[in-house]
Amino acid sequence: MDNEKLSSKTAGKPIRCKAAVCREAGEPLVLEEIMVAPSSPFEVRIRIICTSLCHSDITFWKLKVPPACFPRILGHEAVGVVESVGENVDEVAEGDVVIPIFLSDCGECVDCCSNKSNLCSKFPFKVHPWMPRYETSRFTDLKGDALYHFLFVSSFSEYTVVDITHVVKIDPAIPPNKACLFGCCIATGVGAACKTANVEAGSTVVIFGLGSVGLAVAKGAKLCGANRIIGVDVNPEKFEIGKIFGVTEFINSKDCGDKSLSQVIEEITGGGADYCFECVGLTSLVQEAYASCRKGWGKTVVLGVDKPGAQLSFSSFDVLHSGKILTGALFGGMKAKSDLPVLLKRYMDKELQVDEFITHEVKFEDINKAFELLTEGKSIRCVIWMDK
Amino acid sequence: MDNEKLSSKTAGKPIRCKAAVCREAGEPLVLEEIMVAPSSPFEVRIRIICTSLCHSDITFWKLKVPPACFPRILGHEAVGVVESVGENVDEVAEGDVVIPIFLSDCGECVDCCSNKSNLCSKFPFKVHPWMPRYETSRFTDLKGDALYHFLFVSSFSEYTVVDITHVVKIDPAIPPNKACLFGCCIATGVGAACKTANVEAGSTVVIFGLGSVGLAVAKGAKLCGANRIIGVDVNPEKFEIGKIFGVTEFINSKDCGDKSLSQVIEEITGGGADYCFECVGLTSLVQEAYASCRKGWGKTVVLGVDKPGAQLSFSSFDVLHSGKILTGALFGGMKAKSDLPVLLKRYMDKELQVDEFITHEVKFEDINKAFELLTEGKSIRCVIWMDK
Repeated sequence: MDNEKLSSKTAGKPIRCKAAVCREAGEPLVLEEIMVAPSSPFEVRIRIICTSLCHSDITFWKLKVPPACFPRILGHEAVGVVESVGENVDEVAEGDVVIPIFLSDCGECVDCCSNKSNLCSKFPFKVHPWMPRYETSRFTDLKGDALYHFLFVSSFSEYTVVDITHVVKIDPAIPPNKACLFGCCIATGVGAACKTANVEAGSTVVIFGLGSVGLAVAKGAKLCGANRIIGVDVNPEKFEIGKIFGVTEFINSKDCGDKSLSQVIEEITGGGADYCFECVGLTSLVQEAYASCRKGWGKTVVLGVDKPGAQLSFSSFDVLHSGKILTGALFGGMKAKSDLPVLLKRYMDKELQVDEFITHEVKFEDINKAFELLTEGKSIRCVIWMDK
Repeated sequence: MDNEKLSSKTAGKPIRCKAAVCREAGEPLVLEEIMVAPSSPFEVRIRIICTSLCHSDITFWKLKVPPACFPRILGHEAVGVVESVGENVDEVAEGDVVIPIFLSDCGECVDCCSNKSNLCSKFPFKVHPWMPRYETSRFTDLKGDALYHFLFVSSFSEYTVVDITHVVKIDPAIPPNKACLFGCCIATGVGAACKTANVEAGSTVVIFGLGSVGLAVAKGAKLCGANRIIGVDVNPEKFEIGKIFGVTEFINSKDCGDKSLSQVIEEITGGGADYCFECVGLTSLVQEAYASCRKGWGKTVVLGVDKPGAQLSFSSFDVLHSGKILTGALFGGMKAKSDLPVLLKRYMDKELQVDEFITHEVKFEDINKAFELLTEGKSIRCVIWMDK
């Protein structure tokens, strides 16, 4: 190992620290001491400052069948400080503030070299229990048993190890409780509007589902200069919340009477929306979103995660005759190492506000409270502080 | 009526002429004398010079259920000379050479005013038995019974009447047997590659189905500078034909062995094609095309017309995680009045050759021969000359 990198007292040695381990599906996380191995080559060990809770953590906390696996350290929306780096890591150094990202950006493969894709081919996205490069874990419990990783991040631990292709160095001036949100929610929603859909100024946008990603889409659509941002949800309280994020109109999908949701949208938009974003993860809603898009150029972007095996069905006639576009995006189509810094700069330049996303903040020992708040629909984002 | 427009001897009066009438599904067309009424306001009466036969004519010749209807005058790929115009028509005048187009371009609606759509909202595309504006026919047989129109063109007649929004004036120097092909086949295929997909130079294109539209896609892809143009067909003879149109490689979809077509394509392209065009009209093939596209940016364009009610099915997971794009296009996404003249200029400038499409030419009285040739797969395009 490169000696000049062994500057921290802990570098090169295992670290004993606290982690919130998911030992059983749907059961409260167990706060316990674990061992975090040093970085292998191309890896970075990070001291997590804070992490926020995302719906995908809830999904994999509840899920009882593969790709779920236990015991696992969940969490994938976080910010931290580099504690030490493995061999061959020059991009970041001890003390750097970084965001670990669930999508790799290797900088070498055809996808990472193209500006059209954010889906690294060298380390493809998967819901994997190991490190991307070595198929091993860096976590063990005090009995010596391996703990599984989650989305290559596993931020519900005071320390984690992340492959360098999954790490983005950021400006340390960014408040950590804001920075962590860029690790998933903000990038996914704002990126979907600004990059995947490339919303045109003056256009009409419909957002199906005003959860955190849907609200981030609203932020993105507003940044792009959308004229009408129509939020769809079953919860009427979401309209007042949505307004804060840029939503200009609200449709309660339970109040459409004899009409389908797409009929209502077609009527109020005079022929359909320019852009539709499905942020719930229901095939029926994706189909309504597609039907709600304007013929000629309407674009539907799928962001919600449906259950495995779910099938989307479209009329062949409609696809041919409507000229509509259907696509989907992970992480909003954003490239971790090139697009995310630009988005963070827009935050620092006050073009993009994100304070509204943070409805709750808790100490690490109260992480199960964050799960309750999100499960009960009481929080948008609950930030979990590791050291408070 | 505006007197100064009544310059031809026949203007303003019914014209008795020959038409090939489809009186019964699948039966030979009947060459008979019919009456063609003068143009109503906003209409143009055209003397057809020549017309070619397209698969959609065959489809509606064979179809026994609505939107099929009889007796009907089929034909929608033609060129002709303006015989006279109705009131309020200033765009063309007697003697102008024109192509009638099945898609309207009214120049006024939000779609026609946008450069993103070619789907006129004022006179939407439909397989309609009447004129677009008046819901009446301009054709009667000698018993005085109305004959139905087809796709707003009905070119299997020495004279036809077409709404001015469906008429494009062209350079009379363009050979008529070439010009007529631009009324559907060439515009659809070349437009799909150059406009709908906007194929990038250096890219890999797969064309499913090497019929005339598929071959026109190959022409378009070559114009755009595609590097690999892979043709897929069940007929091995299509490879030699395809080569003439720019196809560089051939896959016989019957010879994939244990592999699916998309697996074969993924292997030979190293991860999938940049663009896939479905030109047959089979849902299963659209799904294979989608699966054959590269993750990250692969685009599938649906051009084939499947049977009514056909449903396309895609995995929700794939749509979300692949970042692929699905779309469809009528007339290749081309706007009749602005895009088609540009394409015709590329033909006149010898950038685009179309001679290869014309495999047969017959007299009008032999129109049923053209149906035989296309039905039996012996022709690509058979041009039917009205006056020879």
